[in-house]
Amino acid sequence: QIDSARLWGDIHETAKFGATPKGGVKRLTLGAEDKQVRDWFRAACEAAGCEVRVDALGTMFAIRPGRDMSKPPIGIGSHLDTQPTGGKYDGILGTLAALEVVRALNDAGIETDIPVCVCNWTNEEGSRYAPAMMASAAYAGDYTTDDILGRKDADGITVADALDTIGYRGADAVGKQKFSAFVELHIEQGPLLEAENKTIGVVDRGQGIIWYDGTISGFASHAGTTPMPLRKDALAAFSEVVLAVEKIARDHGPNAVGTIGEIKIDNPSRNVIPGDLAFTVDIRSSESNILDGLHSAIQAAVAEIAARRKVSIDVQQIWRKEPTVFNTTLVDAVEAATKEMGYSHRRITSGAGHDACNLAGVVPAAMIFVPCKDGISHNELEDATQTDCTAGANVLLHTVLALAGV
Amino acid sequence: QIDSARLWGDIHETAKFGATPKGGVKRLTLGAEDKQVRDWFRAACEAAGCEVRVDALGTMFAIRPGRDMSKPPIGIGSHLDTQPTGGKYDGILGTLAALEVVRALNDAGIETDIPVCVCNWTNEEGSRYAPAMMASAAYAGDYTTDDILGRKDADGITVADALDTIGYRGADAVGKQKFSAFVELHIEQGPLLEAENKTIGVVDRGQGIIWYDGTISGFASHAGTTPMPLRKDALAAFSEVVLAVEKIARDHGPNAVGTIGEIKIDNPSRNVIPGDLAFTVDIRSSESNILDGLHSAIQAAVAEIAARRKVSIDVQQIWRKEPTVFNTTLVDAVEAATKEMGYSHRRITSGAGHDACNLAGVVPAAMIFVPCKDGISHNELEDATQTDCTAGANVLLHTVLALAGV
Ligand SMILES: NC(=O)NCCC(=O)O
Ligand SMILES: NC(=O)NCCC(=O)O
Repeated sequence: QIDSARLWGDIHETAKFGATPKGGVKRLTLGAEDKQVRDWFRAACEAAGCEVRVDALGTMFAIRPGRDMSKPPIGIGSHLDTQPTGGKYDGILGTLAALEVVRALNDAGIETDIPVCVCNWTNEEGSRYAPAMMASAAYAGDYTTDDILGRKDADGITVADALDTIGYRGADAVGKQKFSAFVELHIEQGPLLEAENKTIGVVDRGQGIIWYDGTISGFASHAGTTPMPLRKDALAAFSEVVLAVEKIARDHGPNAVGTIGEIKIDNPSRNVIPGDLAFTVDIRSSESNILDGLHSAIQAAVAEIAARRKVSIDVQQIWRKEPTVFNTTLVDAVEAATKEMGYSHRRITSGAGHDACNLAGVVPAAMIFVPCKDGISHNELEDATQTDCTAGANVLLHTVLALAGV
Repeated sequence: QIDSARLWGDIHETAKFGATPKGGVKRLTLGAEDKQVRDWFRAACEAAGCEVRVDALGTMFAIRPGRDMSKPPIGIGSHLDTQPTGGKYDGILGTLAALEVVRALNDAGIETDIPVCVCNWTNEEGSRYAPAMMASAAYAGDYTTDDILGRKDADGITVADALDTIGYRGADAVGKQKFSAFVELHIEQGPLLEAENKTIGVVDRGQGIIWYDGTISGFASHAGTTPMPLRKDALAAFSEVVLAVEKIARDHGPNAVGTIGEIKIDNPSRNVIPGDLAFTVDIRSSESNILDGLHSAIQAAVAEIAARRKVSIDVQQIWRKEPTVFNTTLVDAVEAATKEMGYSHRRITSGAGHDACNLAGVVPAAMIFVPCKDGISHNELEDATQTDCTAGANVLLHTVLALAGV
């Protein structure tokens, strides 16, 4: 069993790096607070006897040796970056529980056959740089390292510059660190486990995701002198796009969601009709064909709005992640560990994207979910109980024991 | 007659202070570029023999003495600040034409009975600080100087700090400089004069304006895991508000407009359903009772949207400027000067707010409009012809001659 108090202490100790007044965490990837938590994490992994390696995209790999060093390690872990309105658990639980697994093995004097590698993946959240799960996508071969290094945040700072600024541009090539398998513990971020009173979600699928960057060009003009019928108001057109995306997602039923999270008017002013603006779109479903349906319906709606309002609207797909089907052998291993510990559980589909979804493309991967309060995540009020977090960490420990060989 | 080439040269010379790549001007009030144009203007006024005084809100008064210094001067002028996507004429024409009137009087060796005062009013545009026509509103007694000095821009910089930074917090109390009358030349910023092929608009009325600051509080949550029916999406609610304001303005007929120019999501992220946001609303009509109708309809629509979507929406009125009726004697004087010069003309209502609308509350005031291309303003493409600008300046000169007594 893992040390529940130690895990809980670590979660609350690291929450000070980027703590917000409302009790959450704002720790954007590769920022000053991310450096602080990375330094803490490196020291803690080294104190637990691991060698810490960093790859060219800043992902951290802390390796606990096994008897057979010719076998690639069992990868465990998640991410330590957060949303701008993030909580204390999203990613953090999975990373610190992985560290706790290593400590528990140490405490019990257990040497595994296969090494164990605790991971902290760079930019899982996708808030500062797109796409989300950026480093694990590069790891899985979806992007070249150079492509990712050149991506810019809203202030024009590249990933390369941000890595250099915090000193986390590592020497290892992306993908150099191989795994025999990868298992990620995470809070559910949705309402199902809590509603059904289950402790563990055995994750067998993950939703597919498409991200878009959109722009609208109308015509900036005077709010007082431009008659209503003569306007080409980019914001009014945008408002129709928002409501169309919402309606289209609803019309596609419970296995579809659609969200517009960002909107920025160029040179906004109270008394200027918005002329140009930019926005983002996020659509998801666990079925590829529903994603296709959402995609076509949104493109058609946007074309209709643009034509009727005589503005130009451009909606560019910048990322498509197909739905994930996790490795059945590994999913069964998680379920067996859960049963061994006697926790209530159910199979579940992940609504969020995770690094494990990218890893699943190149190694056997699986995930463990624990409930979070009211299903709330990406909100400073995100919460989870010590009991559930401990249960999740124990399932992770026992899955590792089964996979790594004692 | 004024010197057309000199006026045109000045308009294009000062356009370099804040020039944009698209041929417009971005010279937000009390910023570095505003200091540049103020310094230029002060030097030009002094070179024309004026004494330049600055009041506590940075408004500049350049006085050309008259025979009878016991009489308050005839005030002429406008403003040199611009919108973020501003043009080369809005405010600038009226200020530089007023300077040109003084020079033309000098060139002709004319001494007027009553002095003439060329004005550059601080923050007419209202983009950096609300309300628009800020300094002239304080001049007219609508706000105390201290209230205005404490107002903050989006970065939290107060008017007082901004004035100190550029060295334009003057010694004179606001309102100290009295006027016998005030006349402002401006581009129309609307399409009527051009459409009817008239050179001069004799402005007899100005629209009333209400500004609101709005906020919406929904609930920030995960874009991937939050089912559509459980969302409290502040941006979707906002989108309905935008379309409601647009529809309400349209439904109130040609004498009503409504605009949302700004929207800012708190801590936006692609994969977070917007939780909290802030926005602005601008509504106008030349009839007070139509303004009332717009106001009530918007409040009702907002309440309905908030209740249905289970979000809270707050729309606070921060400014109400009643419709302006300009002084008939002064309007007649403008019309007489126009006829004397032989320019085609019509009576017209101003769609935009102007410093003269505030001045009209405390001294006899009037305005002169000239056409602008396609009625476009608050856009970098704003344009006007040298011929029309010259005509407007000549009407200003002859109105001054009639009012100031030769
Ligand atoms: N787990 C998680 O919230 N990941 C962020 C990427 C996404 O799903 O939007
Ligand atoms: N003239 C002008 O554009 N003034 C700005 C204030 C307004 O919005 O009407």
